[in-house]
Amino acid sequence: MATYVNPGSAQAGAHGTVYREVSSEQQAVEQQLVDNVVASFDACQDPRLQELMISLVKHLHSFIREVRLTEEEWGTAIDFLTRAGHITDEVRQEFILLSDTLGASMQTINVNNQAYKGATEATVFGPFFVEDSPAIELGGDLAFGAPGEPCWVEGTVTDTDGTPLAGARIEVWEADEDGLYDVQYEAGKRAGRAHLFSAADGGYRFWGLTPTPYPIPNDGPVGKMLDAVGRSPLRASHLHFMVSHEGARTLVTHIFPEGDPIGRKDTVFGVKDSLIKRFERQPAGTPTPDGRVIDGTWSRVRFDIVLAPAGI
Amino acid sequence: MATYVNPGSAQAGAHGTVYREVSSEQQAVEQQLVDNVVASFDACQDPRLQELMISLVKHLHSFIREVRLTEEEWGTAIDFLTRAGHITDEVRQEFILLSDTLGASMQTINVNNQAYKGATEATVFGPFFVEDSPAIELGGDLAFGAPGEPCWVEGTVTDTDGTPLAGARIEVWEADEDGLYDVQYEAGKRAGRAHLFSAADGGYRFWGLTPTPYPIPNDGPVGKMLDAVGRSPLRASHLHFMVSHEGARTLVTHIFPEGDPIGRKDTVFGVKDSLIKRFERQPAGTPTPDGRVIDGTWSRVRFDIVLAPAGI
Repeated sequence: MATYVNPGSAQAGAHGTVYREVSSEQQAVEQQLVDNVVASFDACQDPRLQELMISLVKHLHSFIREVRLTEEEWGTAIDFLTRAGHITDEVRQEFILLSDTLGASMQTINVNNQAYKGATEATVFGPFFVEDSPAIELGGDLAFGAPGEPCWVEGTVTDTDGTPLAGARIEVWEADEDGLYDVQYEAGKRAGRAHLFSAADGGYRFWGLTPTPYPIPNDGPVGKMLDAVGRSPLRASHLHFMVSHEGARTLVTHIFPEGDPIGRKDTVFGVKDSLIKRFERQPAGTPTPDGRVIDGTWSRVRFDIVLAPAGI
Repeated sequence: MATYVNPGSAQAGAHGTVYREVSSEQQAVEQQLVDNVVASFDACQDPRLQELMISLVKHLHSFIREVRLTEEEWGTAIDFLTRAGHITDEVRQEFILLSDTLGASMQTINVNNQAYKGATEATVFGPFFVEDSPAIELGGDLAFGAPGEPCWVEGTVTDTDGTPLAGARIEVWEADEDGLYDVQYEAGKRAGRAHLFSAADGGYRFWGLTPTPYPIPNDGPVGKMLDAVGRSPLRASHLHFMVSHEGARTLVTHIFPEGDPIGRKDTVFGVKDSLIKRFERQPAGTPTPDGRVIDGTWSRVRFDIVLAPAGI
């Protein structure tokens, strides 16, 4: 009897290394099947599709072999996918939630927005961006009546050499203090989102809302999965940015408040250290940077944005 | 710049080895995400579920990283799953078709029916077994009016030491010559299936139908996938068996006619060399083993069944 090492279990940690005995005869049967499935794509005329299918099949089979998937577990997986398909409609997308909560969405973002020395890091786009955000002036307010604590946001847009980028388009969007985006209000209302352009010195500033945590939809199979594995459905508090400038790679990212109760436990794995910013809460009555007086507390944060060159 | 080897492409063969340059900084970003997702299952109270999720996540992320999945391809995958979910209902199961056509169903069967020296090999169960098959005597006919060429099937049931197993329950089911199972006829009709018991000497014999190829349902996303990669939706011709006996591992398998036009191209990868049997076609008028005269041709096949011990 040869041994087939189970790397999944071996690295599971708490339960120690597990080796399952699989005869060499059995291994040959299993490997032959993998080879047969891979060979079934020999006639594929699209080399990229062929590459994707072969890699997918190899990993799918390695998973089944490593964990020694039982027929009951296979049935549970089929049932999970079926339920995810049936709860998905025009406004609810359970497969994206699944991808998000397994970190697959974030890994796809990583792969397509490779780290570039000194440039601001990207994170997930999310489902709440809309094309037709209102324009605001520098120092304007994107809340448009959305409830929440005011938050002054300022910074600069530069390239990786530190040269200011004037006229960069800055799209910002966020949930209100109840965790709702405007697209979750009645149809057509726009609030908690806007776009503005950086000044000649690359500077920008606007009023938004102090971000707060909110749950992803958790009444479906993905919510049940999170519950079964002891995970929270909450996203870390965040403010969305999309920043573009000619000659620069468009940046899609968030900033996250330091000290957020969810923080690194963000259920879609969007948090990166470099994107955690100090949001300083100001006592009621503190004069604002633009000389206003606000009832109640407000916060302020600085976010200097560095765009990587385009075409990398 | 360190290199990240892309094993998927490297083994794709026809297109040569591909290496994609990924910086060590970028590799660290990607690996950190994998580590974060794995750590998100730390609080899982069910060690087996934890093992499954960790292995799944590792393979999912390795796939995305190896193929450098684009955001458009990610979107195509989400759309595929969504369409599969929407075509799935009580009688159509696109996720099982997907699992079948990627060989995942067959690999799960392999894992749960490990090769045992000398024992008959298992293959896929399929969706067409029903519990309430009619009983037939030794030498009886399971067609019950289903159209097709008559086929005489005979053999023995033994254990791996060659000891005959008397009274083994033999369930047999198959499609008719139009590729339809009885459950695809009007509701409640039973044809092309039966069960019988082996004799005192382990022998069995019955009349069935010579099996023919038929397509899996191919009007949905799985059919489109098969078409895109240049694969046929046809299953190899086959006759289903499920054989059980006290003290033996229940065997679920098929036999496949030698020389079948589909054969190893079976779209669900159910064919194993040891399960390919010679079906000998008999000219019209050839006397049958049970002394009948049949209009037209008939065929005969021998299938000696060897059951592994239970509990392995």
